[in-house]
Amino acid sequence: MSHDLLILSRHAPEYLKLISAARLPDLSIVSTTDLTQVSDRAAACDIVFGEPALIAPVLPKLTSARWIQSTWAGVEPLLNPSLRRDYTLTNARGVFGALMSEYVFGYMLAHERLVFAKRDAQAAGLWDPTPPGSLRGKLVGLLGVGTIGAALAKTAKHFGMRVRGYTRGTQSSKDVDEYFHGDAKAAFARDLDYLVCVMPNTPATRTLVDRTLLDALPPRAVFINPGRGSTVDESALADALGSGRIAGAVLDVFQAEPLPRTHVFWTLPNVIITSHTAALSAPPDIAPLFIENYRRLLGGGPLMHRVDFDAGY
Amino acid sequence: MSHDLLILSRHAPEYLKLISAARLPDLSIVSTTDLTQVSDRAAACDIVFGEPALIAPVLPKLTSARWIQSTWAGVEPLLNPSLRRDYTLTNARGVFGALMSEYVFGYMLAHERLVFAKRDAQAAGLWDPTPPGSLRGKLVGLLGVGTIGAALAKTAKHFGMRVRGYTRGTQSSKDVDEYFHGDAKAAFARDLDYLVCVMPNTPATRTLVDRTLLDALPPRAVFINPGRGSTVDESALADALGSGRIAGAVLDVFQAEPLPRTHVFWTLPNVIITSHTAALSAPPDIAPLFIENYRRLLGGGPLMHRVDFDAGY
Repeated sequence: MSHDLLILSRHAPEYLKLISAARLPDLSIVSTTDLTQVSDRAAACDIVFGEPALIAPVLPKLTSARWIQSTWAGVEPLLNPSLRRDYTLTNARGVFGALMSEYVFGYMLAHERLVFAKRDAQAAGLWDPTPPGSLRGKLVGLLGVGTIGAALAKTAKHFGMRVRGYTRGTQSSKDVDEYFHGDAKAAFARDLDYLVCVMPNTPATRTLVDRTLLDALPPRAVFINPGRGSTVDESALADALGSGRIAGAVLDVFQAEPLPRTHVFWTLPNVIITSHTAALSAPPDIAPLFIENYRRLLGGGPLMHRVDFDAGY
Repeated sequence: MSHDLLILSRHAPEYLKLISAARLPDLSIVSTTDLTQVSDRAAACDIVFGEPALIAPVLPKLTSARWIQSTWAGVEPLLNPSLRRDYTLTNARGVFGALMSEYVFGYMLAHERLVFAKRDAQAAGLWDPTPPGSLRGKLVGLLGVGTIGAALAKTAKHFGMRVRGYTRGTQSSKDVDEYFHGDAKAAFARDLDYLVCVMPNTPATRTLVDRTLLDALPPRAVFINPGRGSTVDESALADALGSGRIAGAVLDVFQAEPLPRTHVFWTLPNVIITSHTAALSAPPDIAPLFIENYRRLLGGGPLMHRVDFDAGY
């Protein structure tokens, strides 16, 4: 049986090159960065590979699609209840841990090493011998310990940190010293130096970072969110930051993106805004996931990283 | 036999507390942050523990000293040829690797993640989706692979980097992919994304970072120096930075410190100055070195981290 693949991605030319180079058997490829007009050939494809935000608007016209491989970890646009779910949806997993580690520890180290204060001193021509801090011995709490959380825990251990994990129930990472679940949110937050949220966007995680959690943090705590904006009660977070009840926040994701110009986060001096760039899908990382899954499809084996539409991840 | 210890350090009260808590046998302690007047009791001490810069000026009066333990890795002030060398000198080693890793990788990640550009965009109220870079696959060259270089190599591997090492001859770290020695300096520098210097200050390392080395770097290269200012030909470095022949530099140490107000480095936009704070000696890290060495002294065993006055480290 032969297959037809529609690549629908901002990076379509690069993906076409990477996937073609794998010389996958029995596969014809249509590739585009834009599908405002759905061609007959695109509509006839049984496999779709690309960004959920590009695929969702044209999903009703992609009537032959039986398997969709997302280039993103988050597949929210395809979870809209008005859209059909009569196909296999797989997402990108296991490839963002390294990038997320660079983001999270880059900003943790920037905080400890006083990089912004030292840059300001330098701009003023001042030799600034203020002793920086260190990650060693500090306590990080991870909201979510899937593949990304496990990668963060490993890097935390590399830097000599103590690690707490808050999960639904799993305790799979050996790099987490102590696990918390369910209503132990305040106990989890107590004494944290850093709180990092890498939860997916699901009904169960919505505004998980709320007043209860934020009130339990010590004043020195820094909140880092490279996960999903939906997990945060932004009004509660703005209050905690504005009143100095916590030290700062590094925010990559928001309830609304781009963050509206009038949002209070733009005015808070202890907030860093990184404009949803923490872990961008890079074609050389993502293409191999499709290639491996296509080989599994041909071999009749189960696909990796299937999304449960009800769980949302 | 009983011993008398003189603690001469900016952190004397903290060291006194840490060393007293170890309840070392047969040890009397004199502790001071300032020794402009050398008391008879201080002059009678056979052991001195403290900062080389504080000890060197009074060394001629510390006539009973037989063993000096430095709280620093660098012991330059005690290597002045006018000073006596009729005692055992030990320095602090093996404790700076973790701090140096935080410094070096903090600034590497700041460079990759565009943290300063993103902060400037935020200050202007701009949502800035510019994709950041990543350390993965990048090539770092370590000038010096002692205990600090080995710690940096290990962290580089954690982040998926490729690692070159330039040493006098040793090849002890397994995390270095390729070693260079002697006159292979230009081959070592070719294609590096990052050049990190962690050489001690010795006659052999003086202006090791010269025009030959800098000219061999690619234009994207960033030079990071948390080692010693003496290893750099500052005029050659200023030329390379000013002309854009290399991308930038992160400098902690200089030929003269504090860096003079008129120095060209203050005026170069691609230089970051961190004012000799990369790896400050922290009493909780350093005190155990003295305690262990004192126990070795009592046991008759060789002391750890003996300095060779001629080699300079």
